[in-house]
Amino acid sequence: MNVHITLAHPEPTSFNGSLTYRAETYFKRAGNNVTKTDLYASDFDPVERGAHYKDRSNKDVFIPLGEQRAAWKNGTTPEDVRSEIDNLRNADLVILQFPLWWHGPPAILKGWFDRTFPSGGVYTSRMRYDEGYFKGKRAMLSVTTGAPEEAFGPGARGGDPATMLWPLHYSLHYLGFEVLHPFLAHGVQGHGYSYEDHGKAECRLAQKLDSWEDRLAGVWNEAAQSFPGWPDWDHRGQPLS
Amino acid sequence: MNVHITLAHPEPTSFNGSLTYRAETYFKRAGNNVTKTDLYASDFDPVERGAHYKDRSNKDVFIPLGEQRAAWKNGTTPEDVRSEIDNLRNADLVILQFPLWWHGPPAILKGWFDRTFPSGGVYTSRMRYDEGYFKGKRAMLSVTTGAPEEAFGPGARGGDPATMLWPLHYSLHYLGFEVLHPFLAHGVQGHGYSYEDHGKAECRLAQKLDSWEDRLAGVWNEAAQSFPGWPDWDHRGQPLS
Repeated sequence: MNVHITLAHPEPTSFNGSLTYRAETYFKRAGNNVTKTDLYASDFDPVERGAHYKDRSNKDVFIPLGEQRAAWKNGTTPEDVRSEIDNLRNADLVILQFPLWWHGPPAILKGWFDRTFPSGGVYTSRMRYDEGYFKGKRAMLSVTTGAPEEAFGPGARGGDPATMLWPLHYSLHYLGFEVLHPFLAHGVQGHGYSYEDHGKAECRLAQKLDSWEDRLAGVWNEAAQSFPGWPDWDHRGQPLS
Repeated sequence: MNVHITLAHPEPTSFNGSLTYRAETYFKRAGNNVTKTDLYASDFDPVERGAHYKDRSNKDVFIPLGEQRAAWKNGTTPEDVRSEIDNLRNADLVILQFPLWWHGPPAILKGWFDRTFPSGGVYTSRMRYDEGYFKGKRAMLSVTTGAPEEAFGPGARGGDPATMLWPLHYSLHYLGFEVLHPFLAHGVQGHGYSYEDHGKAECRLAQKLDSWEDRLAGVWNEAAQSFPGWPDWDHRGQPLS
Protein backbone atom coordinates (compact mmCIF):
# COMPACT_ATOMS: atom_id res chain seq x y z
CA MET A 1 0.00 0.00 0.00
CA ASN A 2 1.00 3.64 -0.40
CA VAL A 3 1.11 5.96 2.58
CA HIS A 4 1.56 9.72 2.47
CA ILE A 5 2.39 11.76 5.59
CA THR A 6 2.03 15.52 5.72
CA LEU A 7 3.90 16.98 8.70
CA ALA A 8 3.21 20.46 10.07
CA HIS A 9 5.71 21.22 12.84
CA PRO A 10 8.61 23.71 12.78
CA GLU A 11 11.07 21.51 14.66
CA PRO A 12 12.28 18.20 13.17
CA THR A 13 13.35 16.88 16.60
CA SER A 14 9.89 17.50 18.09
CA PHE A 15 7.60 14.70 19.20
CA ASN A 16 5.64 15.36 16.00
CA GLY A 17 8.88 14.55 14.18
CA SER A 18 9.24 11.35 16.23
CA LEU A 19 5.69 10.25 15.43
CA THR A 20 6.35 10.90 11.73
CA TYR A 21 9.61 8.96 11.78
CA ARG A 22 8.01 6.07 13.62
CA ALA A 23 5.17 5.89 11.07
CA GLU A 24 7.62 6.06 8.15
CA THR A 25 9.85 3.31 9.47
CA TYR A 26 6.92 1.11 10.51
CA PHE A 27 5.19 1.30 7.12
CA LYS A 28 8.43 0.82 5.15
CA ARG A 29 9.41 -2.19 7.24
CA ALA A 30 5.95 -3.64 6.60
CA GLY A 31 6.59 -3.37 2.84
CA ASN A 32 4.61 -0.26 1.99
CA ASN A 33 5.69 2.79 -0.01
CA VAL A 34 5.88 5.97 2.03
CA THR A 35 6.02 9.57 0.81
CA LYS A 36 6.26 12.61 3.07
CA THR A 37 5.67 16.34 2.83
CA ASP A 38 7.31 18.39 5.57
CA LEU A 39 5.45 21.69 5.18
CA TYR A 40 7.97 23.69 7.22
CA ALA A 41 11.03 22.15 5.57
CA SER A 42 9.61 22.84 2.11
CA ASP A 43 8.70 26.41 3.16
CA PHE A 44 5.12 25.87 2.03
CA ASP A 45 3.17 29.13 1.64
CA PRO A 46 -0.20 28.58 3.35
CA VAL A 47 -1.63 31.89 2.16
CA GLU A 48 -3.99 31.68 -0.82
CA ARG A 49 -3.18 34.84 -2.80
CA GLY A 50 -3.03 36.24 -6.30
CA ALA A 51 0.75 35.84 -6.59
CA HIS A 52 0.32 32.05 -6.85
CA TYR A 53 -1.45 32.46 -10.19
CA LYS A 54 1.03 33.41 -12.90
CA ASP A 55 -1.57 33.88 -15.59
CA ARG A 56 -4.53 35.45 -13.81
CA SER A 57 -7.89 35.06 -15.55
CA ASN A 58 -9.05 38.25 -13.80
CA LYS A 59 -6.19 40.67 -13.26
CA ASP A 60 -8.30 43.38 -11.62
CA VAL A 61 -10.07 41.44 -8.90
CA PHE A 62 -8.67 38.37 -7.15
CA ILE A 63 -11.44 35.79 -6.77
CA PRO A 64 -9.74 32.73 -5.24
CA LEU A 65 -12.17 30.05 -6.44
CA GLY A 66 -12.34 31.62 -9.91
CA GLU A 67 -8.55 31.57 -10.29
CA GLN A 68 -8.38 28.01 -8.94
CA ARG A 69 -10.88 26.85 -11.58
CA ALA A 70 -9.18 28.76 -14.42
CA ALA A 71 -5.72 27.50 -13.45
CA TRP A 72 -6.90 23.90 -13.25
CA LYS A 73 -8.47 24.19 -16.72
CA ASN A 74 -5.34 25.78 -18.19
CA GLY A 75 -2.88 23.48 -16.47
CA THR A 76 -1.36 26.35 -14.50
CA THR A 77 -2.23 25.15 -11.00
CA PRO A 78 0.74 26.10 -8.79
CA GLU A 79 3.52 23.49 -8.82
CA ASP A 80 3.52 22.88 -5.05
CA VAL A 81 -0.22 22.23 -5.17
CA ARG A 82 -0.01 19.85 -8.15
CA SER A 83 2.79 17.95 -6.50
CA GLU A 84 0.82 17.51 -3.26
CA ILE A 85 -2.31 16.41 -5.15
CA ASP A 86 -0.16 13.78 -6.90
CA ASN A 87 1.04 12.55 -3.51
CA LEU A 88 -2.55 12.22 -2.30
CA ARG A 89 -3.74 10.56 -5.54
CA ASN A 90 -1.04 7.93 -5.15
CA ALA A 91 -1.82 7.26 -1.50
CA ASP A 92 -4.09 4.65 0.03
CA LEU A 93 -3.68 6.28 3.44
CA VAL A 94 -2.95 9.93 4.25
CA ILE A 95 -1.75 10.97 7.70
CA LEU A 96 -1.74 14.60 8.78
CA GLN A 97 0.68 15.02 11.70
CA PHE A 98 0.47 18.26 13.69
CA PRO A 99 0.35 19.90 17.13
CA LEU A 100 -2.93 21.44 18.31
CA TRP A 101 -2.35 25.21 18.35
CA TRP A 102 -5.17 27.49 19.48
CA HIS A 103 -7.78 24.73 19.27
CA GLY A 104 -6.90 23.83 15.69
CA PRO A 105 -4.11 23.05 13.22
CA PRO A 106 -1.08 25.34 12.78
CA ALA A 107 -1.68 27.95 10.06
CA ILE A 108 0.70 26.15 7.70
CA LEU A 109 -1.65 23.12 7.72
CA LYS A 110 -4.86 25.17 7.57
CA GLY A 111 -3.44 26.82 4.47
CA TRP A 112 -2.53 23.42 3.05
CA PHE A 113 -6.31 22.88 2.93
CA ASP A 114 -6.93 26.38 1.54
CA ARG A 115 -4.49 25.85 -1.35
CA THR A 116 -4.17 22.11 -2.07
CA PHE A 117 -7.79 21.45 -3.02
CA PRO A 118 -8.72 23.67 -5.99
CA SER A 119 -12.34 24.26 -6.87
CA GLY A 120 -13.15 22.66 -10.22
CA GLY A 121 -10.18 20.36 -9.78
CA VAL A 122 -10.67 18.09 -6.79
CA TYR A 123 -14.25 19.12 -6.10
CA THR A 124 -17.31 20.39 -7.92
CA SER A 125 -20.85 21.01 -6.66
CA ARG A 126 -21.60 17.30 -7.15
CA MET A 127 -18.15 15.73 -6.62
CA ARG A 128 -18.11 16.09 -2.86
CA TYR A 129 -18.67 14.08 0.34
CA ASP A 130 -19.40 10.42 -0.40
CA GLU A 131 -18.92 11.28 -4.09
CA GLY A 132 -15.64 13.08 -3.41
CA TYR A 133 -12.48 13.00 -5.52
CA PHE A 134 -10.41 10.96 -3.05
CA LYS A 135 -13.09 8.30 -2.56
CA GLY A 136 -11.70 4.96 -1.40
CA LYS A 137 -8.68 6.45 0.35
CA ARG A 138 -8.29 6.67 4.11
CA ALA A 139 -7.15 9.72 6.07
CA MET A 140 -6.16 10.17 9.71
CA LEU A 141 -5.21 13.08 11.92
CA SER A 142 -2.37 12.45 14.38
CA VAL A 143 -2.36 15.28 16.88
CA THR A 144 -0.26 16.32 19.86
CA THR A 145 -1.56 18.59 22.62
CA GLY A 146 0.25 20.41 25.42
CA ALA A 147 -2.18 19.76 28.26
CA PRO A 148 -2.70 16.44 30.03
CA GLU A 149 -5.38 14.07 28.74
CA GLU A 150 -7.64 14.70 31.74
CA ALA A 151 -8.05 18.37 30.73
CA PHE A 152 -9.96 17.39 27.56
CA GLY A 153 -13.53 16.37 26.82
CA PRO A 154 -16.98 17.94 26.46
CA GLY A 155 -17.19 21.00 28.72
CA ALA A 156 -13.63 20.45 29.95
CA ARG A 157 -10.99 23.18 30.16
CA GLY A 158 -8.98 22.10 27.15
CA GLY A 159 -12.03 21.60 24.95
CA ASP A 160 -13.49 18.54 23.28
CA PRO A 161 -11.15 17.02 20.67
CA ALA A 162 -14.15 15.86 18.60
CA THR A 163 -15.33 19.47 18.26
CA MET A 164 -11.88 20.96 17.74
CA LEU A 165 -11.03 18.46 14.99
CA TRP A 166 -14.48 18.47 13.37
CA PRO A 167 -13.59 21.13 10.77
CA LEU A 168 -10.57 19.18 9.46
CA HIS A 169 -12.40 15.86 9.64
CA TYR A 170 -15.34 17.27 7.72
CA SER A 171 -13.05 18.84 5.12
CA LEU A 172 -11.46 15.42 4.55
CA HIS A 173 -14.95 13.89 4.28
CA TYR A 174 -15.91 16.65 1.80
CA LEU A 175 -12.97 15.53 -0.34
CA GLY A 176 -14.17 11.93 -0.30
CA PHE A 177 -11.73 10.41 2.19
CA GLU A 178 -12.80 7.76 4.66
CA VAL A 179 -11.90 9.60 7.85
CA LEU A 180 -10.40 7.43 10.57
CA HIS A 181 -10.59 8.32 14.25
CA PRO A 182 -7.74 10.63 15.27
CA PHE A 183 -4.64 9.53 17.17
CA LEU A 184 -4.03 11.85 20.11
CA ALA A 185 -0.84 12.30 22.12
CA HIS A 186 -1.52 14.58 25.08
CA GLY A 187 0.89 16.34 27.42
CA VAL A 188 3.54 17.02 24.79
CA GLN A 189 5.45 20.21 25.42
CA GLY A 190 8.70 21.67 24.22
CA HIS A 191 11.23 19.18 22.99
CA GLY A 192 8.92 16.19 23.06
CA TYR A 193 8.82 16.53 26.86
CA SER A 194 5.93 17.33 29.06
CA TYR A 195 4.51 19.03 32.11
CA GLU A 196 5.79 16.09 34.11
CA ASP A 197 9.39 15.68 35.10
CA HIS A 198 11.75 14.82 32.31
CA GLY A 199 12.37 11.11 32.98
CA LYS A 200 8.73 10.18 33.44
CA ALA A 201 7.80 12.12 30.33
CA GLU A 202 10.40 10.38 28.21
CA CYS A 203 9.10 7.01 29.35
CA ARG A 204 5.48 8.00 28.81
CA LEU A 205 6.20 9.34 25.34
CA ALA A 206 8.24 6.27 24.38
CA GLN A 207 5.19 4.19 25.29
CA LYS A 208 3.04 6.55 23.24
CA LEU A 209 5.24 5.88 20.19
CA ASP A 210 4.67 2.16 20.74
CA SER A 211 0.91 2.63 20.90
CA TRP A 212 1.13 4.71 17.69
CA GLU A 213 2.79 1.78 15.96
CA ASP A 214 0.15 -0.62 17.36
CA ARG A 215 -2.54 1.68 16.00
CA LEU A 216 -0.90 1.79 12.57
CA ALA A 217 -0.75 -2.01 12.43
CA GLY A 218 -4.56 -2.08 12.33
CA VAL A 219 -5.09 0.97 10.15
CA TRP A 220 -6.24 -0.91 7.03
CA ASN A 221 -9.03 -2.68 8.86
CA GLU A 222 -10.35 -0.28 11.45
CA ALA A 223 -13.80 1.32 11.08
CA ALA A 224 -13.91 4.90 9.82
CA GLN A 225 -15.89 7.76 11.36
CA SER A 226 -19.39 8.27 10.08
CA PHE A 227 -20.46 11.57 8.49
CA PRO A 228 -23.68 12.46 6.68
CA GLY A 229 -23.58 12.23 2.86
CA TRP A 230 -25.81 12.90 -0.17
CA PRO A 231 -28.43 10.26 0.72
CA ASP A 232 -28.95 11.97 4.09
CA TRP A 233 -29.87 15.45 2.81
CA ASP A 234 -32.77 17.06 1.01
CA HIS A 235 -32.16 19.33 -2.01
CA ARG A 236 -31.36 22.27 0.25
CA GLY A 237 -28.80 20.30 2.19
CA GLN A 238 -30.87 19.84 5.35
CA PRO A 239 -30.97 16.43 7.04
CA LEU A 240 -33.86 14.22 5.96
CA SER A 241 -35.88 13.47 9.03
CA MET B 1 -15.29 53.59 22.46
CA ASN B 2 -12.41 52.01 20.56
CA VAL B 3 -13.01 49.44 17.88
CA HIS B 4 -10.38 47.30 16.17
CA ILE B 5 -11.11 45.33 13.00
CA THR B 6 -8.82 42.58 11.73
CA LEU B 7 -9.60 41.71 8.10
CA ALA B 8 -8.49 38.46 6.48
CA HIS B 9 -9.43 38.52 2.79
CA PRO B 10 -7.08 38.81 -0.20
CA GLU B 11 -9.34 41.13 -2.23
CA PRO B 12 -10.14 44.65 -0.98
CA THR B 13 -13.24 44.90 -3.21
CA SER B 14 -14.69 41.67 -1.80
CA PHE B 15 -17.84 41.56 0.29
CA ASN B 16 -15.55 41.10 3.30
CA GLY B 17 -14.02 44.44 2.29
CA SER B 18 -17.52 45.97 2.09
CA LEU B 19 -18.45 44.68 5.54
CA THR B 20 -15.22 46.10 6.94
CA TYR B 21 -15.78 49.48 5.30
CA ARG B 22 -19.37 49.60 6.54
CA ALA B 23 -18.28 48.85 10.11
CA GLU B 24 -15.50 51.45 9.95
CA THR B 25 -17.75 54.21 8.64
CA TYR B 26 -20.58 53.33 11.01
CA PHE B 27 -18.41 53.39 14.12
CA LYS B 28 -16.58 56.56 13.11
CA ARG B 29 -19.83 58.38 12.35
CA ALA B 30 -21.08 57.31 15.80
CA GLY B 31 -18.06 58.99 17.39
CA ASN B 32 -15.85 55.98 18.09
CA ASN B 33 -12.18 55.49 17.26
CA VAL B 34 -11.52 52.74 14.74
CA THR B 35 -8.26 50.97 13.95
CA LYS B 36 -7.86 48.26 11.32
CA THR B 37 -5.38 45.54 10.45
CA ASP B 38 -5.65 44.22 6.90
CA LEU B 39 -3.63 41.00 7.19
CA TYR B 40 -3.23 40.55 3.43
CA ALA B 41 -2.36 44.21 2.76
CA SER B 42 0.27 44.14 5.50
CA ASP B 43 1.64 40.82 4.19
CA PHE B 44 1.30 39.26 7.63
CA ASP B 45 3.26 36.00 8.01
CA PRO B 46 0.91 33.52 9.68
CA VAL B 47 3.60 30.88 10.11
CA GLU B 48 5.09 30.62 13.62
CA ARG B 49 8.75 29.84 12.95
CA GLY B 50 12.24 30.38 14.30
CA ALA B 51 13.04 33.22 11.90
CA HIS B 52 10.66 35.52 13.82
CA TYR B 53 12.96 35.37 16.85
CA LYS B 54 16.09 37.42 16.24
CA ASP B 55 17.75 36.46 19.49
CA ARG B 56 16.83 32.81 20.01
CA SER B 57 17.07 31.54 23.58
CA ASN B 58 17.60 28.03 22.19
CA LYS B 59 19.44 28.10 18.88
CA ASP B 60 19.54 24.32 18.43
CA VAL B 61 15.91 23.39 18.90
CA PHE B 62 12.97 25.63 18.06
CA ILE B 63 10.37 25.37 20.84
CA PRO B 64 7.67 27.89 19.91
CA LEU B 65 6.24 28.52 23.39
CA GLY B 66 9.73 28.71 24.89
CA GLU B 67 10.84 31.36 22.39
CA GLN B 68 7.57 33.27 22.87
CA ARG B 69 8.16 33.41 26.63
CA ALA B 70 11.83 34.37 26.30
CA ALA B 71 11.09 37.08 23.73
CA TRP B 72 8.33 38.59 25.86
CA LYS B 73 10.66 38.70 28.87
CA ASN B 74 13.48 40.28 26.85
CA GLY B 75 11.30 42.73 24.94
CA THR B 76 12.10 41.08 21.61
CA THR B 77 8.58 39.94 20.71
CA PRO B 78 8.27 40.41 16.91
CA GLU B 79 7.23 43.95 15.96
CA ASP B 80 4.11 42.91 14.02
CA VAL B 81 2.91 40.92 17.03
CA ARG B 82 3.57 43.75 19.50
CA SER B 83 1.76 46.20 17.26
CA GLU B 84 -1.31 43.96 17.00
CA ILE B 85 -1.37 43.35 20.77
CA ASP B 86 -1.34 47.14 21.23
CA ASN B 87 -4.32 47.42 18.90
CA LEU B 88 -6.21 44.83 20.93
CA ARG B 89 -5.24 46.38 24.28
CA ASN B 90 -6.62 49.71 23.12
CA ALA B 91 -9.88 48.23 21.83
CA ASP B 92 -13.20 47.87 23.61
CA LEU B 93 -14.50 45.76 20.73
CA VAL B 94 -12.54 43.54 18.32
CA ILE B 95 -14.10 42.33 15.07
CA LEU B 96 -12.51 39.53 13.05
CA GLN B 97 -13.79 39.73 9.47
CA PHE B 98 -13.17 36.72 7.23
CA PRO B 99 -14.59 34.24 4.72
CA LEU B 100 -15.19 30.64 5.81
CA TRP B 101 -12.64 28.55 3.91
CA TRP B 102 -12.60 24.78 4.44
CA HIS B 103 -14.83 24.95 7.50
CA GLY B 104 -12.63 27.49 9.26
CA PRO B 105 -10.72 30.77 8.97
CA PRO B 106 -8.23 31.44 6.15
CA ALA B 107 -4.69 30.38 7.15
CA ILE B 108 -3.63 34.02 7.47
CA LEU B 109 -6.15 34.45 10.32
CA LYS B 110 -5.44 31.08 11.94
CA GLY B 111 -1.78 32.12 12.04
CA TRP B 112 -2.78 35.48 13.52
CA PHE B 113 -3.90 33.41 16.52
CA ASP B 114 -0.74 31.26 16.42
CA ARG B 115 1.55 34.30 16.52
CA THR B 116 -0.31 37.23 18.16
CA PHE B 117 -0.85 35.67 21.57
CA PRO B 118 2.52 34.75 23.08
CA SER B 119 2.74 32.34 25.97
CA GLY B 120 3.92 34.14 29.12
CA GLY B 121 2.77 37.43 27.60
CA VAL B 122 -0.97 37.44 27.11
CA TYR B 123 -1.60 34.16 28.91
CA THR B 124 -0.15 32.02 31.68
CA SER B 125 -1.46 28.83 33.26
CA ARG B 126 -3.70 30.93 35.52
CA MET B 127 -4.34 34.03 33.32
CA ARG B 128 -6.81 32.36 30.99
CA TYR B 129 -10.55 32.07 30.34
CA ASP B 130 -12.59 34.27 32.71
CA GLU B 131 -9.24 35.46 34.14
CA GLY B 132 -7.83 36.17 30.69
CA TYR B 133 -5.62 39.09 29.64
CA PHE B 134 -8.27 40.81 27.52
CA LYS B 135 -10.99 40.61 30.20
CA GLY B 136 -13.68 43.27 29.82
CA LYS B 137 -13.29 43.58 26.05
CA ARG B 138 -15.77 42.23 23.53
CA ALA B 139 -14.95 40.25 20.39
CA MET B 140 -17.07 39.19 17.43
CA LEU B 141 -16.55 37.06 14.35
CA SER B 142 -18.08 38.39 11.12
CA VAL B 143 -18.05 35.59 8.60
CA THR B 144 -19.04 35.13 4.97
CA THR B 145 -19.86 31.74 3.45
CA GLY B 146 -20.28 30.64 -0.16
CA ALA B 147 -23.31 28.39 0.20
CA PRO B 148 -26.88 29.53 0.85
CA GLU B 149 -28.09 29.84 4.43
CA GLU B 150 -30.36 26.78 4.11
CA ALA B 151 -27.33 24.51 3.57
CA PHE B 152 -26.10 25.12 7.14
CA GLY B 153 -27.04 23.75 10.54
CA PRO B 154 -26.54 20.61 12.65
CA GLY B 155 -26.24 17.61 10.31
CA ALA B 156 -26.67 19.81 7.24
CA ARG B 157 -24.45 19.68 4.16
CA GLY B 158 -22.52 22.87 4.86
CA GLY B 159 -21.96 22.03 8.50
CA ASP B 160 -23.07 23.72 11.70
CA PRO B 161 -21.64 27.24 12.10
CA ALA B 162 -21.59 26.83 15.90
CA THR B 163 -19.25 23.84 15.57
CA MET B 164 -17.11 25.32 12.80
CA LEU B 165 -16.57 28.56 14.72
CA TRP B 166 -16.17 26.92 18.13
CA PRO B 167 -12.34 26.77 17.96
CA LEU B 168 -11.99 30.52 17.29
CA HIS B 169 -14.71 31.43 19.79
CA TYR B 170 -13.07 29.32 22.47
CA SER B 171 -9.64 30.80 21.71
CA LEU B 172 -11.10 34.29 22.20
CA HIS B 173 -12.70 33.11 25.46
CA TYR B 174 -9.32 31.64 26.52
CA LEU B 175 -7.84 35.12 26.06
CA GLY B 176 -10.50 36.68 28.29
CA PHE B 177 -12.72 38.29 25.67
CA GLU B 178 -16.50 38.37 26.05
CA VAL B 179 -17.38 36.53 22.87
CA LEU B 180 -20.44 37.87 21.05
CA HIS B 181 -22.55 35.75 18.72
CA PRO B 182 -21.13 35.73 15.20
CA PHE B 183 -22.53 37.72 12.29
CA LEU B 184 -22.99 35.48 9.27
CA ALA B 185 -23.44 36.50 5.64
CA HIS B 186 -24.24 33.43 3.56
CA GLY B 187 -24.23 32.95 -0.21
CA VAL B 188 -21.30 35.26 -0.86
CA GLN B 189 -19.23 34.17 -3.84
CA GLY B 190 -16.69 35.79 -6.07
CA HIS B 191 -16.80 39.55 -6.21
CA GLY B 192 -19.33 39.98 -3.43
CA TYR B 193 -21.89 38.25 -5.64
CA SER B 194 -23.60 34.99 -5.15
CA TYR B 195 -25.00 31.78 -6.52
CA GLU B 196 -28.12 33.72 -7.47
CA ASP B 197 -28.29 35.95 -10.48
CA HIS B 198 -26.29 39.12 -10.27
CA GLY B 199 -29.06 41.70 -9.67
CA LYS B 200 -30.83 39.77 -6.95
CA ALA B 201 -27.53 39.10 -5.25
CA GLU B 202 -26.55 42.74 -5.23
CA CYS B 203 -29.87 43.65 -3.66
CA ARG B 204 -29.64 40.85 -1.09
CA LEU B 205 -26.09 41.79 -0.15
CA ALA B 206 -26.94 45.49 0.12
CA GLN B 207 -29.65 44.50 2.59
CA LYS B 208 -27.11 42.35 4.41
CA LEU B 209 -24.85 45.39 4.83
CA ASP B 210 -27.81 47.24 6.36
CA SER B 211 -28.47 44.42 8.80
CA TRP B 212 -24.75 44.43 9.67
CA GLU B 213 -25.03 48.09 10.61
CA ASP B 214 -28.20 47.40 12.63
CA ARG B 215 -26.35 44.67 14.48
CA LEU B 216 -23.41 46.98 15.22
CA ALA B 217 -25.76 49.59 16.64
CA GLY B 218 -26.60 47.21 19.48
CA VAL B 219 -23.16 45.73 19.93
CA TRP B 220 -22.36 47.39 23.28
CA ASN B 221 -25.49 46.03 24.93
CA GLU B 222 -26.09 42.59 23.48
CA ALA B 223 -25.57 39.45 25.56
CA ALA B 224 -22.34 37.52 25.00
CA GLN B 225 -22.04 33.79 24.44
CA SER B 226 -21.57 31.65 27.52
CA PHE B 227 -18.52 29.41 27.93
CA PRO B 228 -17.34 27.43 30.95
CA GLY B 229 -14.73 29.12 33.17
CA TRP B 230 -12.60 28.39 36.24
CA PRO B 231 -15.54 28.05 38.65
CA ASP B 232 -17.00 25.31 36.43
CA TRP B 233 -14.00 22.92 36.49
CA ASP B 234 -12.31 20.68 39.01
CA HIS B 235 -8.52 20.75 39.43
CA ARG B 236 -8.04 18.47 36.43
CA GLY B 237 -10.15 20.69 34.20
CA GLN B 238 -13.19 18.42 34.07
CA PRO B 239 -16.66 19.92 34.48
CA LEU B 240 -17.98 19.90 38.03
CA SER B 241 -21.16 17.89 38.01
